[in-house]
Amino acid sequence: MHATPRSPRPNPKGKLLYAQSGGVTAVINATAAAVIETCRRHKITAYAARNGILGALREDLIDTTRESPAAIRALGHTPGGAFGSCRVKLKSLEDDRAKYARLIDVFRAHAIRWFLYNGGNDSADTALKLSQLGKTMGYDIRCIGVPKTVDNDLAVTDCSPGFGSVAKYTAVSLRECALDVASMMDTSTKVFVMEVMGRHAGWIAASAGLAGVGRDDAPHVILFPERVFDAEAFLERVRQTVERVGCCVVAASEGIKYADGTFVADAHAGTDAFGHTQLGGVAPALAGLVRGKLNLKTHWAMPDYLQRSARHIASKTDLDQALAVGKAAVELALAGANAVMPVIRRTADSPYRWKIETAQLDAIANREKRLPKSFITRDGFHITAAARKYLAPLIRGEAPPPYGRDGLPEYVTLKNAAVKKKLPAFDLA
Amino acid sequence: MHATPRSPRPNPKGKLLYAQSGGVTAVINATAAAVIETCRRHKITAYAARNGILGALREDLIDTTRESPAAIRALGHTPGGAFGSCRVKLKSLEDDRAKYARLIDVFRAHAIRWFLYNGGNDSADTALKLSQLGKTMGYDIRCIGVPKTVDNDLAVTDCSPGFGSVAKYTAVSLRECALDVASMMDTSTKVFVMEVMGRHAGWIAASAGLAGVGRDDAPHVILFPERVFDAEAFLERVRQTVERVGCCVVAASEGIKYADGTFVADAHAGTDAFGHTQLGGVAPALAGLVRGKLNLKTHWAMPDYLQRSARHIASKTDLDQALAVGKAAVELALAGANAVMPVIRRTADSPYRWKIETAQLDAIANREKRLPKSFITRDGFHITAAARKYLAPLIRGEAPPPYGRDGLPEYVTLKNAAVKKKLPAFDLA
Repeated sequence: MHATPRSPRPNPKGKLLYAQSGGVTAVINATAAAVIETCRRHKITAYAARNGILGALREDLIDTTRESPAAIRALGHTPGGAFGSCRVKLKSLEDDRAKYARLIDVFRAHAIRWFLYNGGNDSADTALKLSQLGKTMGYDIRCIGVPKTVDNDLAVTDCSPGFGSVAKYTAVSLRECALDVASMMDTSTKVFVMEVMGRHAGWIAASAGLAGVGRDDAPHVILFPERVFDAEAFLERVRQTVERVGCCVVAASEGIKYADGTFVADAHAGTDAFGHTQLGGVAPALAGLVRGKLNLKTHWAMPDYLQRSARHIASKTDLDQALAVGKAAVELALAGANAVMPVIRRTADSPYRWKIETAQLDAIANREKRLPKSFITRDGFHITAAARKYLAPLIRGEAPPPYGRDGLPEYVTLKNAAVKKKLPAFDLA
Repeated sequence: MHATPRSPRPNPKGKLLYAQSGGVTAVINATAAAVIETCRRHKITAYAARNGILGALREDLIDTTRESPAAIRALGHTPGGAFGSCRVKLKSLEDDRAKYARLIDVFRAHAIRWFLYNGGNDSADTALKLSQLGKTMGYDIRCIGVPKTVDNDLAVTDCSPGFGSVAKYTAVSLRECALDVASMMDTSTKVFVMEVMGRHAGWIAASAGLAGVGRDDAPHVILFPERVFDAEAFLERVRQTVERVGCCVVAASEGIKYADGTFVADAHAGTDAFGHTQLGGVAPALAGLVRGKLNLKTHWAMPDYLQRSARHIASKTDLDQALAVGKAAVELALAGANAVMPVIRRTADSPYRWKIETAQLDAIANREKRLPKSFITRDGFHITAAARKYLAPLIRGEAPPPYGRDGLPEYVTLKNAAVKKKLPAFDLA
């Protein structure tokens, strides 16, 4: 009833289930579009799970064959996760046996032979566990991880689809607001702090460094989670920069910590007059520090979700790679592969070249790729030439979405027609 | 020694001085480029004052004739204020007589016959005062205000150059992050708050409303400074929206106030463990309220300067108007006009048509155009059809800057060569 491993002619009655997991990106839907289009070319029915693995557990499946070719093309330039994503991690096969059994029931009921899980480290772990269901629970499902994360912290792959676009957003935005700050520094803001994502890894903060080239170009200070935050050294660097340049633009990762391990954002969180904890961030904390200790006028920005959904300023390189991993994942699945992930291998820096290779999920699951030491300058406040060499190609090329006559990007909302349920409800609690 | 009023052939020995004032925008440099190019066509030397009116007081002038045609073209797509801006307001002629006398000294020393001040309400006031120097202090200077403000609060003109681009940035960013929120709402963020500029007028907040069309499209709630912030009503609206839609995206103006007149941002500002005042904002305050009262997971964004410097997503309509007012200002000056401002008059909504007219500065200076009552829905939480009709044309059309091979917009840094000083220093204090 299922495709023979490495079968050259996949069983057309088997279906492929695609799901999105974890924080979404500007290009995860491009991967989804590539998955669906590749399935269509191979005459395979592609279902999508609504809200990631939860949709599979709830038997809440979406029939993508109900979407028009135009809708799938538009999906390719629409940010967010069109089928819904989730932050859910399955436990071990032993600890979550009922859930794995449920997944098998759902897969069997709908003849799901291939499962593609599009996510980061945690999702690779889920995909890896599902890939073992054949061996451990007697249902032969082929499981392919598909890489995605703005954090760029996936192991093995040279970079992660989603990262190049947030890196481009960050570098472009920082270059723009630095021009703003420089215009006003004579009588207004002297220190500007832009907070970026990256709780454990400083890849996005590093990408801010691409905004400038010369010594006095912004950003003047970058703060990485890989380095302990030293308030004294930071303030001294800011003071010197303002003295020399007239202003200081800081890019700070949300995840920076004091030497004792507390997040800077948490250390400075206060309580407001209403007794609510202030939902702080690194940017207001640092701005408060600078204002308090150096008495300089500050401003700060926290783009939050704007940075990872900014499809309008996506990187063409990133988009191409998001499409390539989607296509490769389907082809791997149909060729009978299991417990693998298509990854990006860089074959040359300049001109930049890359290709898709296949990696084992167990080399990826639950690992975390931080910024190498060689990418951070000795003083801890900027990126090195090695970092620039790595990062530069990832933000290259523009891939704007089409705009409507109303001046807004034409993003699609899919029908997301539900597949008729065949099983009784399952208690997730 | 100076041009005869209404002279058909302006004196080529007279010079024009251009200055930028107040918060900068994505397109104020487009106006500057149009001013300089129009001067070049008329063979008039254009100087720029470094850091707005301060440059004139300090005799810190920039010779724009030293810039290449390519640099001036690039200026047309570079955000920020290329000559520096300032936040300085001159007092009355009586109270600041020494400064006005100094300005006359500087103007006379450099044969400045025309002064163009590119700014908002306060700058129109300064320009108006300078325009009276001929009458009151015997030096015949022609003074033209040039409109600019992201806040769109200038009187008389239908809209202000700078606003259309921040409006487009706001609507596009909100549409994008709303897709992100909707993807994750099942297991993650339910309420997202995006803070936008506009301390007294809700034009930018209103522009967020263009992101969606249907009743359940984001933004679900807009908070305007023209309405008293009612925490109970707000929370109830958020609760209902989450119940109905699954999430709630809020666009909030930085300037919203409680009934007693305190800014919401200030009311919730706390003190951190280090004794520093938390540099709060409306977004974290509202997110804290929602989390505290409704126990819903929240996220918030504060784009701050990013929104007003985002030249990469500028509105073509806005850019065209920024260019048009620059050109018109020079032509008005050379034709001998004084104490006026070129303004935008809308002649049709659909298809949108506009033209440049001339307004008296005394009808503009120190006034503030707030959002009309008819633009806000009765419940106070959204924009009306009338608002859409007004706002829609202003974000239409794309005008991306050129990108380099490095994937970044090619913004220019001018030489800004100083004009040799002819006068002793002046004590500004």
